Amino acid sequence: MARSALARAPRPGAPAVVLVSGGLDSATVLALARESGYACHALSLDYGQRHRAELDAARRVSQALGAVRHEIVQVDFGRFGGSSLTDTGMQVPTSAGTQGIPSTYVPARNTVMLSLALSWAEALDGQDLFYGANAVDYSGYPDCRPAYVEAFERLANLATRAGVEGRPMRVHAPIIELRKAEIIREGLRLGVDFSLTVSCYQADEQGRACGLCDSCRIRAAGFEAAGVADPTRYRP
Amino acid sequence: MARSALARAPRPGAPAVVLVSGGLDSATVLALARESGYACHALSLDYGQRHRAELDAARRVSQALGAVRHEIVQVDFGRFGGSSLTDTGMQVPTSAGTQGIPSTYVPARNTVMLSLALSWAEALDGQDLFYGANAVDYSGYPDCRPAYVEAFERLANLATRAGVEGRPMRVHAPIIELRKAEIIREGLRLGVDFSLTVSCYQADEQGRACGLCDSCRIRAAGFEAAGVADPTRYRP
Repeated sequence: MARSALARAPRPGAPAVVLVSGGLDSATVLALARESGYACHALSLDYGQRHRAELDAARRVSQALGAVRHEIVQVDFGRFGGSSLTDTGMQVPTSAGTQGIPSTYVPARNTVMLSLALSWAEALDGQDLFYGANAVDYSGYPDCRPAYVEAFERLANLATRAGVEGRPMRVHAPIIELRKAEIIREGLRLGVDFSLTVSCYQADEQGRACGLCDSCRIRAAGFEAAGVADPTRYRP
Repeated sequence: MARSALARAPRPGAPAVVLVSGGLDSATVLALARESGYACHALSLDYGQRHRAELDAARRVSQALGAVRHEIVQVDFGRFGGSSLTDTGMQVPTSAGTQGIPSTYVPARNTVMLSLALSWAEALDGQDLFYGANAVDYSGYPDCRPAYVEAFERLANLATRAGVEGRPMRVHAPIIELRKAEIIREGLRLGVDFSLTVSCYQADEQGRACGLCDSCRIRAAGFEAAGVADPTRYRP
């Protein structure tokens, strides 16, 4: 796993698959991948999330940050159940200080996303995936930790033609150890327009945030700590 | 990784997710999982394969072998390209003795399937996945090797709530080291009706096989080596 996108300079224009969710973390990761010289292939997952505004944001972010292609892959996680993000019978938590793994965790969603990114990277004959995991703010999610990213990279090298033939697959997680304020400052340095991004777990159709869920709280605190204006639009 | 389904006896009726492709290997694995006492949740992937008869076979097999539920998840791999099984512009190879990784390899398909199985298992609060990988006949596929299965199990334990909370996820690959004839004999012992299964990479709509592709050759040779009648229906 490479924590810095600059640690491994690619050949110019090498393809990379970048997971783009529509939030501010993955927007910053896309900007970092582009800065490193990759031809960025943005991948988003339509997993039956409540907050459809996320996918609109992913489209806008991918276009604004020069992705050469953006694909949205549909996977119906709702039929498996188990998460408040896909199960409308469950409540999205709005109290601060959630302990353990929150109900907004979608079982193995990030593993499925990385697997799809791996498939696309292999079809492109590429070796690089970019994943906006963050272990600081999302420490309750098991698949945002460095050990997980390292395990996925290891799997990727056993799973693929490239890995078998000695062209290693690399999973870049350039913001995994940054605080939210640092991610915001890094994004601003790279010209990311955060007004295009949506972080709220239950944004409305216009992408306006609730201001109450964990993701809204973390985002607002990040802009405050960074000392920059927060472009988030809240619903009335 | 457990090479024998019997190596780890479950609590009676514990849920397991079993990957069921419609072929004879995964049918035997489903029968083994049921023999071990699991409540089997069969999972198939609609990945835009040419041979749609596979999914009909997966339905029949799941029902005949007592799966408590069968889900087919659609993932459009065709848009990524790179495989003769999803790209109609490519030819399915029919010559024997293919060297290296064959063009029928769908990039990272098995990793995506296992990830989906992991998601379902986690939503079910289960700990067991069954994967019909075979390292003998499909040695050209990187994701059919024991080292790959072990790496996925390791990832699964880092990726999930169960793993984090000390209830280990297990990836069972009970036929990984069996020869095709041994798989067939094991299936017959368990009452698998192989006439329900389809192995051909380019079966017609009635599930009739071409008799020419690698998968057909391996299947036919397996029945011959097992010394049992081959129920495969070939097209005229």
